[in-house]
Amino acid sequence: MAREPRLVEVRRNVLKQNDVVARELRTEFREAGVFVASMVSSPGAGKTALLERTLTLLRSRYRVAALVGDLATENDAARLKRSGAEVRQITTGTVCHLEAAMVRSGLEGWSLGALDFLFIENVGNLVCPSGYDLGEDLRFVLMSVTEGEDKPLKYPTIFNSADVSVLTKVDLADAVEFDWAAAEANIQAVRPGMHVLRVSAKTGAGMPEYLQALEAGLAERRAAAT
Amino acid sequence: MAREPRLVEVRRNVLKQNDVVARELRTEFREAGVFVASMVSSPGAGKTALLERTLTLLRSRYRVAALVGDLATENDAARLKRSGAEVRQITTGTVCHLEAAMVRSGLEGWSLGALDFLFIENVGNLVCPSGYDLGEDLRFVLMSVTEGEDKPLKYPTIFNSADVSVLTKVDLADAVEFDWAAAEANIQAVRPGMHVLRVSAKTGAGMPEYLQALEAGLAERRAAAT
Repeated sequence: MAREPRLVEVRRNVLKQNDVVARELRTEFREAGVFVASMVSSPGAGKTALLERTLTLLRSRYRVAALVGDLATENDAARLKRSGAEVRQITTGTVCHLEAAMVRSGLEGWSLGALDFLFIENVGNLVCPSGYDLGEDLRFVLMSVTEGEDKPLKYPTIFNSADVSVLTKVDLADAVEFDWAAAEANIQAVRPGMHVLRVSAKTGAGMPEYLQALEAGLAERRAAAT
Repeated sequence: MAREPRLVEVRRNVLKQNDVVARELRTEFREAGVFVASMVSSPGAGKTALLERTLTLLRSRYRVAALVGDLATENDAARLKRSGAEVRQITTGTVCHLEAAMVRSGLEGWSLGALDFLFIENVGNLVCPSGYDLGEDLRFVLMSVTEGEDKPLKYPTIFNSADVSVLTKVDLADAVEFDWAAAEANIQAVRPGMHVLRVSAKTGAGMPEYLQALEAGLAERRAAAT
């Protein structure tokens, strides 16, 4: 098809522009001493449930805030605000991913220096977010046990763009006869050495190890600044 | 951002080109007397499981075939071939949806007139496929009960691009405390009057009503041809 090269070229420019903004954001985050973690996954894998529990658990000891992306509705922001944290919704309309410029706009008026952790929840999509750096320090790719063990093989790019895998809804693993070994093997096949966490935002299982990963990241950031 | 108008313009051209091919496909399908149904959903909502059961159940009475889209792997085609039906995999690389031209290429060498039903399984994505007509007669949007009731509100465009909603994995509804009334209300909020089916490919629950929708479509097609 004749139109392909042109589309690819335009996409490349968009990505390049995104990378410039992402790099600026990363510098700002580092200078402000805030640790920034993002979450990508399929729709319904449990990003918001995990984030709600994260904000609630961290809030007593840290200054936390979140940006949440969705095509439509402010529902997630409303839900997350119950944790008491500052939360803003980014609605993308028909855009299938967040871009660094959307993160920048979402942060307007917030003082990054007043935060320990900033969380960014991407649009539910296992494809499109992979190409867009948001300046985050750590990208979690979530995969619920109800989605099946084969997702890493079918969506390798997103697993490659992330730093840590989080298997979610592990309380449902028995009900869906989840094959832990197959899931782990599939993740390692596309991303050898990837760290894999297991959590249930519902029961709280696995939350300590997951929070530890975040706190270690913050400690590293602070140590590097001094 | 200065680049936006140009990107939008290119996207529009891609869509227009897609619509031309989709229209040609639709005409070919009608002339061949084959009824074409497609499936869109999040990754892991159960498209392949439902399709496997569909092919197995229909195959004794109808001539059936399927095209299945994924970014990577031929796993789904291999799995679906166990049904005995003709199945071809379309691998899209990094493209987050099927396009009509991919369907056309996937059909090469197949005689449409030798088929009663053709199924097209889209890439797992609740955003991108919505803008791409594939020439199908009926588009199912699947949503598993494990994804939560709010998906129609958050991804309205895909529900608007589909003809029928299928709630899947209904055997897990109790385990996830699925709120049927809320799910139905959310679907009707974005798409008033939409037909909603409930199935479990695992237990077979709801399969008769779902197959009936397909058979009614084929009967209509055949009646229109005579």
